[in-house]
Amino acid sequence: MDTRTGLPVVGMVGGGQLARMTHQAAISLGQSLRVLAESPDDSAALVAADVRIGSHRDLSALREFAKGCDAVTFDHEHVPNEYIAALAAEGVTIYPRAEAIVFAQDKGRMRVRLEELGAPVPRWRPVASAADIEHLAGEAGWPVVAKATRGGYDGRGVWVLGSAAEAAELVSTGTPLIVEERVPLRRELAALVARSPFGQVAAYPVVETVQRDGICVEVLAPAPALSESLALRAQQLAIDLAHGLGVVGLLAVELFETDTGVVVNELAMRPHNSGHWTIEGARTSQFEQHLRAVLDYPMGSTALTAPCVVMANVLGGRSGGISVDERLHHLFADDTGVRVHLYGKQIRPGRKIGHVTVLGEDPVSVRARAARAARWLQEGTA
Amino acid sequence: MDTRTGLPVVGMVGGGQLARMTHQAAISLGQSLRVLAESPDDSAALVAADVRIGSHRDLSALREFAKGCDAVTFDHEHVPNEYIAALAAEGVTIYPRAEAIVFAQDKGRMRVRLEELGAPVPRWRPVASAADIEHLAGEAGWPVVAKATRGGYDGRGVWVLGSAAEAAELVSTGTPLIVEERVPLRRELAALVARSPFGQVAAYPVVETVQRDGICVEVLAPAPALSESLALRAQQLAIDLAHGLGVVGLLAVELFETDTGVVVNELAMRPHNSGHWTIEGARTSQFEQHLRAVLDYPMGSTALTAPCVVMANVLGGRSGGISVDERLHHLFADDTGVRVHLYGKQIRPGRKIGHVTVLGEDPVSVRARAARAARWLQEGTA
Repeated sequence: MDTRTGLPVVGMVGGGQLARMTHQAAISLGQSLRVLAESPDDSAALVAADVRIGSHRDLSALREFAKGCDAVTFDHEHVPNEYIAALAAEGVTIYPRAEAIVFAQDKGRMRVRLEELGAPVPRWRPVASAADIEHLAGEAGWPVVAKATRGGYDGRGVWVLGSAAEAAELVSTGTPLIVEERVPLRRELAALVARSPFGQVAAYPVVETVQRDGICVEVLAPAPALSESLALRAQQLAIDLAHGLGVVGLLAVELFETDTGVVVNELAMRPHNSGHWTIEGARTSQFEQHLRAVLDYPMGSTALTAPCVVMANVLGGRSGGISVDERLHHLFADDTGVRVHLYGKQIRPGRKIGHVTVLGEDPVSVRARAARAARWLQEGTA
Repeated sequence: MDTRTGLPVVGMVGGGQLARMTHQAAISLGQSLRVLAESPDDSAALVAADVRIGSHRDLSALREFAKGCDAVTFDHEHVPNEYIAALAAEGVTIYPRAEAIVFAQDKGRMRVRLEELGAPVPRWRPVASAADIEHLAGEAGWPVVAKATRGGYDGRGVWVLGSAAEAAELVSTGTPLIVEERVPLRRELAALVARSPFGQVAAYPVVETVQRDGICVEVLAPAPALSESLALRAQQLAIDLAHGLGVVGLLAVELFETDTGVVVNELAMRPHNSGHWTIEGARTSQFEQHLRAVLDYPMGSTALTAPCVVMANVLGGRSGGISVDERLHHLFADDTGVRVHLYGKQIRPGRKIGHVTVLGEDPVSVRARAARAARWLQEGTA
């Protein structure tokens, strides 16, 4: 407890935009998020009052950070699993637990566990040698998709392989891999749920995520023209996985929609890009929900606040041209209703530097407004 | 500009809940609010990254604080007017300007200027001696309302006087006063607008403010059963005053609704309690709007996000009983949709320690939910 306020202290390991937006949510709950950042210039470190500088790969830094926290949680999956287990063994309240987050850290472990739980997954195989890839391709056909078991994000750590030669070349790099069939997908969906230690689960409406070059560029909430039965199936799947994997906090289940249903692509156990729309678009944002979950508060309403919500990511664009500040002036003059979230990050091409959210009645115009706003901030031109 | 982000730095003098919530809004715009707080335990100082400790009555502290700010603004009206003028003369971009904020600092100056601008005001008179009070009572009848010209808030600095003897006793204290007729009011309203240096004005829907013991306890947005013509008149009045007084930033015009229209009660030139509902209830919150105004960004949409929004203040209640943290657990279990804002303040009876907001369709049930939630947080019982 913070003795000044009588309210809990949550520590978040990692100082990126997820911690930044979680701090915003913490303020409403009377709290001030404690952030373990690698640098004082990290996105969350620029705005939070209680910032500790240290590495998430340093157990003694993690120990020191956890002192006085009512709960510790994460902005990313990169804390070594054995450190999370060690902190828990020492009495730190830390969520998600090591036994759960491992399934978001290791894609091989994740695939094995999802099959045990009976969840729909792509045909897959662990890769000990190039022969495993050829084997899967023999069953499913080329191309196949190889994934680094650890550390991939935003399209990194994923390779589409068209031949045995390409497979051999990738395997020769020594990266630990799994291989999966290339799923014939209609589109990508995401199901976001939060689960408390008590076991209460709250499920958000299922969304469509639009990817470009492996990076999520837009999220459409709710997913347009998704049948109610498939939406319910996807929500139930995410709820079952949250229970089955023992998740506390948020669980984002990235899904492929196919001709016959959905299969699980990836899992994340933290606030997720597919849930940024909830800041304005749901009665309780994913960031507040994550805090409520790790503190074992009752979950908040996940109801939509408008019939249609679209989030578009702002990526670092070409350099030069007018400044982001000037772009903001033009954007605000162009569209008075767009909601802007900038992360205070240095601009690098392709890096997520912010997002915009538009709410409204008509999916087509709402999406067009969001895309236009993101393009403005990204390129300084419509 | 913040060289790390390329985005502007706004400094806010005062570390109360208004600065705290303005910091939340600043984060979305890629900024980090710089706060001049009196103590590290101030509401905003608990959550902001860039906090300077110093007094708003110390010109050199203000000067130091303003260095590197793209704009300086206020969380209250207590900065000496001559200091604001001095900073502006030295080249600091400071809003509202000394020439404007004086009308929110001095009720006598305010009344004179409002009459010059032709705004509807109660019958009033400056008080040089008790005879002035008796004179006004002779015209308007007892009781009359005496107000300290400076420093009053939440019912302090306001006295209802029933007789010449009471008037004489108050005058003998030496407090500089004005005296006004007691307006036969139906209810209280508030009209909130924001104005940029460019002169663009955005007006929020007119709200009803419900007072108890001189403290605002509820705000109903939009004001129930307010005729469109009177709502437009109140908005136009606030717009005219923003222009006429040269306000930059927010202007809250507190109004009495009478049988014949509205009269101006008080003015505030900053985010205001009557606008807290805008955080979730309007497309652009008053806090973001104030930042946009002082930075001369285009104003954001003031559209309602739901047909009916009610904000209820949480005051410090009786001590003892269950903790605020436990109350929060119960409240969240009771109502999953209520939005909570706690300010991190020590509880003292009657002190504003937070607020709740409920959005919905039906004014009666929305108001009941907000009142119930505020009572829970205040007393630990429904």
